[in-house]
Amino acid sequence: MKHLLLAAAAASLVLPVYAAEPAPVPSPGEIAAAAPASDWIAIAPSDLLVMDLAPDAKGKPRRVVIQLMPAPFSQGWIGNIRKLAAAHWWDGTSINRVQDNYVTQWGDATEKKPLPEGLVTVPESEYVTTSDAISEANATHLDGNSDASSAAAALGDEITASEERSKAAQISIDGTRTKAALDGWHERDSYAPWVEIFNEWPVGAEQMGEGLWRYWPVHCYGAVGVGRNMSPDTGSGAELYTVIGEAPRHLDRNIALIGRVISGMEYLTSLPRGTGPLGFYEDEAQRIPILSVRLGNELPAAQQPKYEILSTSSVSFHRYVDARANRRDPFFIKPAGGVNICNIPVPIRPVAAK
Amino acid sequence: MKHLLLAAAAASLVLPVYAAEPAPVPSPGEIAAAAPASDWIAIAPSDLLVMDLAPDAKGKPRRVVIQLMPAPFSQGWIGNIRKLAAAHWWDGTSINRVQDNYVTQWGDATEKKPLPEGLVTVPESEYVTTSDAISEANATHLDGNSDASSAAAALGDEITASEERSKAAQISIDGTRTKAALDGWHERDSYAPWVEIFNEWPVGAEQMGEGLWRYWPVHCYGAVGVGRNMSPDTGSGAELYTVIGEAPRHLDRNIALIGRVISGMEYLTSLPRGTGPLGFYEDEAQRIPILSVRLGNELPAAQQPKYEILSTSSVSFHRYVDARANRRDPFFIKPAGGVNICNIPVPIRPVAAK
Repeated sequence: MKHLLLAAAAASLVLPVYAAEPAPVPSPGEIAAAAPASDWIAIAPSDLLVMDLAPDAKGKPRRVVIQLMPAPFSQGWIGNIRKLAAAHWWDGTSINRVQDNYVTQWGDATEKKPLPEGLVTVPESEYVTTSDAISEANATHLDGNSDASSAAAALGDEITASEERSKAAQISIDGTRTKAALDGWHERDSYAPWVEIFNEWPVGAEQMGEGLWRYWPVHCYGAVGVGRNMSPDTGSGAELYTVIGEAPRHLDRNIALIGRVISGMEYLTSLPRGTGPLGFYEDEAQRIPILSVRLGNELPAAQQPKYEILSTSSVSFHRYVDARANRRDPFFIKPAGGVNICNIPVPIRPVAAK
Repeated sequence: MKHLLLAAAAASLVLPVYAAEPAPVPSPGEIAAAAPASDWIAIAPSDLLVMDLAPDAKGKPRRVVIQLMPAPFSQGWIGNIRKLAAAHWWDGTSINRVQDNYVTQWGDATEKKPLPEGLVTVPESEYVTTSDAISEANATHLDGNSDASSAAAALGDEITASEERSKAAQISIDGTRTKAALDGWHERDSYAPWVEIFNEWPVGAEQMGEGLWRYWPVHCYGAVGVGRNMSPDTGSGAELYTVIGEAPRHLDRNIALIGRVISGMEYLTSLPRGTGPLGFYEDEAQRIPILSVRLGNELPAAQQPKYEILSTSSVSFHRYVDARANRRDPFFIKPAGGVNICNIPVPIRPVAAK
């Protein structure tokens, strides 16, 4: 807290001071930008999908980068996604559906293109995962700063000293939960008894018994999922969509998520909305051609996508969440005292080539 | 419930039946479409703002219709909006900012156009309104079906008979609240101790003392608000924005809302994102010209916009909310058991000319 107070005191010398109002503090973006290098985790190019759309009307290239979800979430579908990308299966397919405030969807519009061999049929049980898988994932997470208890304690000190105690920062050890539960922000919401950001991914959870939990990834803006037909079909992964509006959380546990768009989202959101049922394009000419989809590590070394993500175990991330729940930067007059899990995008940034 | 059970029984003769799964029931959209005429309320053309953008690249007209919020919400700003529209002040201005997952904003890019006389400076205290104003609004609400207690009771019967008891439908009379609180769905969320849909508008509320509540409109997708500079400035209403992504609820009580887009939202969401700071267009040529903005009643009678909205006091609306919280239509396998207030768009439909 010392640094924050000093910064605020210095700022008060040059900024207008309103009586009884707290001095300006950093915005969430400023907190992330100031995070030390040790709080950032490199994303392996092999965990990124690079989708090149046909250039726009002015000839400008349109590249979309998708981060694939790690184990234990959606691993069955992720295997299929990797096989489809390796087979260059999406090359020559298209974006076929854009439904306002819902999804942009792509794949084979003809529904006749043969799928590569070896795709797995994933059962509905894989929409959720269990405590054991979570513990394992937590143990093997490549995290430079995994001491979430220290992070929570550090944040606790800071918050105690602040006027607005943040619900988001009420990180206390719950006897029934493991350390994984402290990894970021957690609170019940309308769709899940428990929500948190686990190893950089927003998830919901439900307790099924003593020490037994079920977890599932949640549908936030930019989440990428697997189109499917009627249950019990769960989709192969060939047909994908991304969320372009208010988080459709009612899809959680009803459809598989496999990742999120981390760059080029604007090329998927600014497309004309389809005028057919469910927002499908009625005219073939409206479809947006997909030139290629590649796993990042399949590109030439110099072209491989390089990104890093803010560790959700870091003190910086905890501060970032607190600031998102309690905006105290100068524009704001009334901090909310809380935040929806889909309003906590985990900071991700490109890494400049060396 | 009888009708639903009969419908489900009939459907089971022709649809595949999965053991132990409930028979198909209507989707939220089907429930709204089946609502009787008496559940719909006409929206006065004088409460609609009609904004015509320049035609798109293919010469297609782009008309956006905005419903203005009724008293007691944002009435100070609404007066300004009506004056600006009457003065045709927005004609010749433009859309200047499109920030992905946040807002599309329009107004005078030069910031030099003189404002019409008579605009009111609205104080920050008007970001919220009080119980008294709410009671008055409820008493004067033009509602063909305002017996919310009956609606709640009718829904209660239905829900008791259903397998999945909906949190959204747990409509019980709270001793400290008035009938207004029953007008739709209510539950606390991350941003407010209480949220509900009051007389067709989503609002947050907070109890300030015995019988004393404060209410405020909330930022959902399509909400229209008033741009402002740093506090204590609250904006005149000349600069407007609409939400085009995940609901930025941290803006609640920090900035004024004046209505919502009810038609033509796709013309505001499918625009290229601005590449300048905050998503402003860097090049003047990128701005989208606004040809005219008129109050609906200022248009020739035959061109006046005709819409109606589903009364949030109606049994149909309560069923609609329950269905949104517990999707049991055939695509779904796991109803959520809850719903975020911004995932309950109040059904609105155009009325065909007679």
